[in-house]
Amino acid sequence: MSNNTNHKVETSIRTLGTAKIDTCIPMCKAVDDSKPMAVTLTADDIENITEDHLTIRLQAAGPRSKLYFDPSKTKCAIVTCGGLCPGINDVIRAIVMEAYHNYNVASVVGIQFGLRGLIPTYQHDFLELTPERVSDIHQFGGTILGSSRGLQPADEIVDALERSNINVLFMIGGDGTMKAAETIVQEIDRRGQKISVIGIPKTIDNDINYVTKSFGFDSAVEKATEAIQCAHVEAVGMQNGIGLVKLMGREAGFIAAQSTLALKEVNFVLIPESRFYLHGEGGFLPSLEKRLRSRGHAVIVCAEGAGQELCPDYGQPDESGNPVLGDICAVLKREIKEYFTGIGMEYGMKYIDPSYIIRSVPANANDRIYCGFLGQNAVHAAMAGKTGMVVSMLQNRMIHLPLELVIERRKKLNTNSAYWRSVLESTGQEDFCKMDPGCE
Amino acid sequence: MSNNTNHKVETSIRTLGTAKIDTCIPMCKAVDDSKPMAVTLTADDIENITEDHLTIRLQAAGPRSKLYFDPSKTKCAIVTCGGLCPGINDVIRAIVMEAYHNYNVASVVGIQFGLRGLIPTYQHDFLELTPERVSDIHQFGGTILGSSRGLQPADEIVDALERSNINVLFMIGGDGTMKAAETIVQEIDRRGQKISVIGIPKTIDNDINYVTKSFGFDSAVEKATEAIQCAHVEAVGMQNGIGLVKLMGREAGFIAAQSTLALKEVNFVLIPESRFYLHGEGGFLPSLEKRLRSRGHAVIVCAEGAGQELCPDYGQPDESGNPVLGDICAVLKREIKEYFTGIGMEYGMKYIDPSYIIRSVPANANDRIYCGFLGQNAVHAAMAGKTGMVVSMLQNRMIHLPLELVIERRKKLNTNSAYWRSVLESTGQEDFCKMDPGCE
Amino acid sequence: MSNNTNHKVETSIRTLGTAKIDTCIPMCKAVDDSKPMAVTLTADDIENITEDHLTIRLQAAGPRSKLYFDPSKTKCAIVTCGGLCPGINDVIRAIVMEAYHNYNVASVVGIQFGLRGLIPTYQHDFLELTPERVSDIHQFGGTILGSSRGLQPADEIVDALERSNINVLFMIGGDGTMKAAETIVQEIDRRGQKISVIGIPKTIDNDINYVTKSFGFDSAVEKATEAIQCAHVEAVGMQNGIGLVKLMGREAGFIAAQSTLALKEVNFVLIPESRFYLHGEGGFLPSLEKRLRSRGHAVIVCAEGAGQELCPDYGQPDESGNPVLGDICAVLKREIKEYFTGIGMEYGMKYIDPSYIIRSVPANANDRIYCGFLGQNAVHAAMAGKTGMVVSMLQNRMIHLPLELVIERRKKLNTNSAYWRSVLESTGQEDFCKMDPGCE
Amino acid sequence: MSNNTNHKVETSIRTLGTAKIDTCIPMCKAVDDSKPMAVTLTADDIENITEDHLTIRLQAAGPRSKLYFDPSKTKCAIVTCGGLCPGINDVIRAIVMEAYHNYNVASVVGIQFGLRGLIPTYQHDFLELTPERVSDIHQFGGTILGSSRGLQPADEIVDALERSNINVLFMIGGDGTMKAAETIVQEIDRRGQKISVIGIPKTIDNDINYVTKSFGFDSAVEKATEAIQCAHVEAVGMQNGIGLVKLMGREAGFIAAQSTLALKEVNFVLIPESRFYLHGEGGFLPSLEKRLRSRGHAVIVCAEGAGQELCPDYGQPDESGNPVLGDICAVLKREIKEYFTGIGMEYGMKYIDPSYIIRSVPANANDRIYCGFLGQNAVHAAMAGKTGMVVSMLQNRMIHLPLELVIERRKKLNTNSAYWRSVLESTGQEDFCKMDPGCE
Repeated sequence: MSNNTNHKVETSIRTLGTAKIDTCIPMCKAVDDSKPMAVTLTADDIENITEDHLTIRLQAAGPRSKLYFDPSKTKCAIVTCGGLCPGINDVIRAIVMEAYHNYNVASVVGIQFGLRGLIPTYQHDFLELTPERVSDIHQFGGTILGSSRGLQPADEIVDALERSNINVLFMIGGDGTMKAAETIVQEIDRRGQKISVIGIPKTIDNDINYVTKSFGFDSAVEKATEAIQCAHVEAVGMQNGIGLVKLMGREAGFIAAQSTLALKEVNFVLIPESRFYLHGEGGFLPSLEKRLRSRGHAVIVCAEGAGQELCPDYGQPDESGNPVLGDICAVLKREIKEYFTGIGMEYGMKYIDPSYIIRSVPANANDRIYCGFLGQNAVHAAMAGKTGMVVSMLQNRMIHLPLELVIERRKKLNTNSAYWRSVLESTGQEDFCKMDPGCE
Repeated sequence: MSNNTNHKVETSIRTLGTAKIDTCIPMCKAVDDSKPMAVTLTADDIENITEDHLTIRLQAAGPRSKLYFDPSKTKCAIVTCGGLCPGINDVIRAIVMEAYHNYNVASVVGIQFGLRGLIPTYQHDFLELTPERVSDIHQFGGTILGSSRGLQPADEIVDALERSNINVLFMIGGDGTMKAAETIVQEIDRRGQKISVIGIPKTIDNDINYVTKSFGFDSAVEKATEAIQCAHVEAVGMQNGIGLVKLMGREAGFIAAQSTLALKEVNFVLIPESRFYLHGEGGFLPSLEKRLRSRGHAVIVCAEGAGQELCPDYGQPDESGNPVLGDICAVLKREIKEYFTGIGMEYGMKYIDPSYIIRSVPANANDRIYCGFLGQNAVHAAMAGKTGMVVSMLQNRMIHLPLELVIERRKKLNTNSAYWRSVLESTGQEDFCKMDPGCE
Repeated sequence: MSNNTNHKVETSIRTLGTAKIDTCIPMCKAVDDSKPMAVTLTADDIENITEDHLTIRLQAAGPRSKLYFDPSKTKCAIVTCGGLCPGINDVIRAIVMEAYHNYNVASVVGIQFGLRGLIPTYQHDFLELTPERVSDIHQFGGTILGSSRGLQPADEIVDALERSNINVLFMIGGDGTMKAAETIVQEIDRRGQKISVIGIPKTIDNDINYVTKSFGFDSAVEKATEAIQCAHVEAVGMQNGIGLVKLMGREAGFIAAQSTLALKEVNFVLIPESRFYLHGEGGFLPSLEKRLRSRGHAVIVCAEGAGQELCPDYGQPDESGNPVLGDICAVLKREIKEYFTGIGMEYGMKYIDPSYIIRSVPANANDRIYCGFLGQNAVHAAMAGKTGMVVSMLQNRMIHLPLELVIERRKKLNTNSAYWRSVLESTGQEDFCKMDPGCE
Repeated sequence: MSNNTNHKVETSIRTLGTAKIDTCIPMCKAVDDSKPMAVTLTADDIENITEDHLTIRLQAAGPRSKLYFDPSKTKCAIVTCGGLCPGINDVIRAIVMEAYHNYNVASVVGIQFGLRGLIPTYQHDFLELTPERVSDIHQFGGTILGSSRGLQPADEIVDALERSNINVLFMIGGDGTMKAAETIVQEIDRRGQKISVIGIPKTIDNDINYVTKSFGFDSAVEKATEAIQCAHVEAVGMQNGIGLVKLMGREAGFIAAQSTLALKEVNFVLIPESRFYLHGEGGFLPSLEKRLRSRGHAVIVCAEGAGQELCPDYGQPDESGNPVLGDICAVLKREIKEYFTGIGMEYGMKYIDPSYIIRSVPANANDRIYCGFLGQNAVHAAMAGKTGMVVSMLQNRMIHLPLELVIERRKKLNTNSAYWRSVLESTGQEDFCKMDPGCE
């Protein structure tokens, strides 16, 4: 069980200094940092793996017997950045509850509308987050703190943290936010400050490197299946009915693939990681025709980032630096119309884009549990003086990951995995993906 | 309690002939046709009423002691037309169950894909609908029979009914279908045939004349509130966040208004019946600005048929003869952008169009009950030899309405009613609707 | 259309005095008290009706052009009494929102834990109810004010109202609470005080006299159908499986009957209003045997107050003065066991009592709308100086009912109605209810 | 990373013979049996572990390149045994779909009402399971095949399999069923027959050895949280309100613990693995009193198998050989009443037993995906000629486990794990569990 040379992973976690204060929390057993946890990964977990499996050693999450911060003097801050995702409020709640009930910290404040809330020109006050204030927020989608996209200068952020005597900053956000976290950690370090920065990765696309499932993913899939079920109902209600559902997934097709597995009515799933052709043998359009001729209806699930090479308008970056995606569903609608008009075959199509309805729902039970773990362990890590890291779950283990590892690259769906094989078994779409070089 | 002269309503129901066969169904008490039911209507029920209330007398629905058709020789057919609506399968199920279990009719068949299913060129077979076949269909949205839009020639339809020995045709559909039903009844009558045609009005817009609530309306509203809740969550998650939700309602704003009452987060509701202006005092855009300045977010619900005079592209009829609507939400999005850019005010907007997700869900408990009543009573009416009528609920009473009355005009929301007053109280949008001449 | 002599109903509403203050609320049109609303009732609405229908004239709910109370000096109080029911928080929210946003009243306070909250010995503080405090409470079941059962002396209550300068008391509660409201009104009147008491009837049993549907009923039925569906799944999962579901309904079987209509899987529905026998021809047990032999499973829905004459322990009153019910489901379980053991027939039984799961859920969309109307109109009535009345819905109209009429008797399901006939058609249980003298 | 000597686990899988037929299914990559999958376990996965972690090597699930059975001549049978659990129909559906669509097997039959369906005296016919028959069954809870408890003689079962020319038997059931599967495998082996027996472990208690989560567990937890939420609503609605919820868990408290994590309103969770005392310092009753005095309400979740030593009636085995549990909730209700009466403290209690409502619901999205994997992989394993094994998920990997390993012992919640620590952090119930020797 040797380490794969492609994956010489650096997993050590930075600290602010030696933790010397006895912990105040009642507990069965503290985590021992000298005993890292072994986690075995396969092609189902990471895309770029060449061996059958790879075992890495990671720091386990959980309470430590010694604290770096004195709880009675510790002021924590929480910020939420980027788009909505089910479970943000659960994470906020868990941080506040853990900080107050188990550590008795002095204060937890909420920064409003993302990192802007730290920049004076925006004039957003902090929200004082008490257990009473947050006790019911997990019943609601979204974030009680508000959010925004876009970056703010690291030095202004650290100025604000210093000015406000904040000891711990919990950053809930996506890829861009984790990159911002790293620059903030470096600025704090440059100034010799003792401020802990703990990331809680949020992405509805589930494309965080080394994270099995990001929080909110399950809830999003649950909700996405409702939209697919509607598309199915619409499709069977017409002669040659086509239900086309666009799902999130800019560079990774996890929501599309998982929803397909959850609702077995999907006949075609199109994801960024698996190239497809429209015309010719094994092409999407002839496959769709074949399906309609044999069954009279079809359901297509398309990740927003699929088939970009087919879109004329792919290109320039948006406010947060993400490339603007080409509108693949518009392309599909147009091409389907041309194709079936061309062969004189009547059909009906209903197009559903449920994105905002998916991402703004409250978390389901599974995600609530996960978000609870994230919040609890984020506080444990911070109080022990750790910094520049994220709390996450990998293969059912709550672990610490260094920020560098997380922002190194985005996770993609490995089309050479047992998981993707199951997706293809479920849709039966072998015809046109056969050409995919990822599929041997 | 005199009849309003504006509403000299003709409520007599046509029959195929004298019902002479003793009923076979066990029951407490048969309905007596000689005793019509008094129903009192107000501005909340009908738009064009000038007096405080109006009492009309209608034939009550329910089993009769004498049947016109001999159940053992009766063949029924069901057809579903137009767009989807929650509860269609419930109505189909109720008809089949009632016909089999309580009347022991010889056969019930389902016509596939709307009236096309009766036209030989489309080559759709009938489905044999037995209690076993339909026992679970109420758990699913849509229609197991499939549907289509557009009309078919009445004489070809009656040819098909004769050819297939169908005695009763149950037509589930909207305004256009009810008009088609009337021409079919006239064609049957012209030929001297004894075929009963019973309509069950279906419209998710709830715009059937003299029908308090059409089936599926409650379920649609329940689902629409979920989308509005998501819009609210998105809106509060941004600085000056605007959530814009488009709901069904081509000529009547019932779903928009009812959803607004159900989820008190709506700040502006725009419906076809209430004219509004974009600019100037009491205009929509200044009102929206005011709302954002005071509360930081806003939720707008817009019926698809609202503000048509503001749309450049309003115009030509579609396949079913309905005028194609202008895209009011596109207009709003553009105008909002221009307005706020013009005054240099940053805002965020999320637009949700949940139509297909709303109309394809299964019915909720309330609609299931209603659909059960519709199906049961449609069979009662048909077996008693009635024809050219619809079964419906008016003011909590299951009643018979002549087709002529139903297709006379579409129902609209009376903006001069207590109902609309409650909607305005709920949104607080008095500013810009003040100009509405309907509002004194 | 003469008034039925059995139903000489007194429908005039008491007032505290002449309303002289111009209303402050923006509105289309005020309600004119000189024009009562005509409402037509049938056997579906009231039990003890001998004619086909009965038209009564009632005061319409809604805003008046003149107010009795000066809003800027008006202090309102809300109290919630008795068991939980979906929608209580919606009513509280609607009262607060209407009072603040449309009338700008000085203050609304919440009395905690029922009428006890007015009695000094219990030491419960009032809650200040602001729009911010109540803005999200409709998302939760139960009552944010807490509740209690049992009565408190009317003079102590009026002492507390005087001491706290309360001008309006909104009482949300059941039959007992409405009776208490009447004694409080009389005590206020005796003292010559000007305090308005407005009742909002709450009963999950739906047994309020002259009220078509009490709030929360729809939500309760929706939830009850889930339990029945589970009972059905359990029943079909066993050979000769029996699913027995107990539902609320002490003296009226509305929830049982309505849930039966909503989920067509029920084979036997037992309600207080319809007597049944266990043994002999047409008895429940032989009917159950017959059903099992023909279909292999059966679902029974039993209202808690059904078949009391079969229970040995029927009898003494509880704390609130309601008679303690005999445990009919325990009797059924024992009798079923004896019967099938006696005839040597194997069976399985699953018993579900979902009461607390039904009554503590949040209201569905329909009930939210209804509760909104109740709250809005309760405030309108109070501000106009009306007292000793309840706000309710009868036949889709929001109306005022005098307290005396409401507490006169409890509503029961009329087994001689079209409604009950539909229930019997749905279950097919004619065999054993045939003996019911209510069924001719 | 040496194997723990306590866990010398035998993980080799039996086969019926050499697989020689080329696979017919289209696929990316076949699983290679010579490369077992490494899985690392910790105290969170298995109870009786003494080292920090343990790595075992297991056969990966998935399609093989060679088949043992010729699909065109293969007849499969499915049987479901024991109590209901969400997802059974999903597993049935996945087996049928995989067998038909990907392998084109000759036939799949369903055995009705458990193993009884194979015994001639019970006279249950087989159901022919086609893709059409099963296409919608995942929308329903329960099992379309029916189930039964109790064992049947292995030789009679194998007689029936031979008589019916069944090549593969898929057994979906709990601990007892897996033991029965082992005796059937041995009887088949004794006769030299070539019949594959594949188990799919089903237990709502989640107590299958070496299985991270059994299917249906997530759905059950989701549903259980609804009941707990209701208990919470009831508790806060009364002065000193107590909500007591009984959940499944005969010997393992997984559902109780997981539901507690999912809904943070639980103040006390009682499970079989953690002993507790009623009286004295750190006792449950004084802790409950303390909680009520400080917060005014409390929610208790109790696994049915908790505190058995406190129950007078613990004892004798039922039909399936499981010991009958003492009624711990009855004990708690009585003791709570005595205790609070004794100290003269008024309280209210609502007791909810949602078991049948939890176990009979349809699976949620997560479980549907899992059940899909189970069904697909069960077919893969059978077609490759494997037998005497179960398909399951361990640490996110779909794997094969030998039956012997699975039936060796039941899984219990390790109270010395990070998982249980999180549960205690969530409830804050350290006081009375401190005495638990499992908690150091």
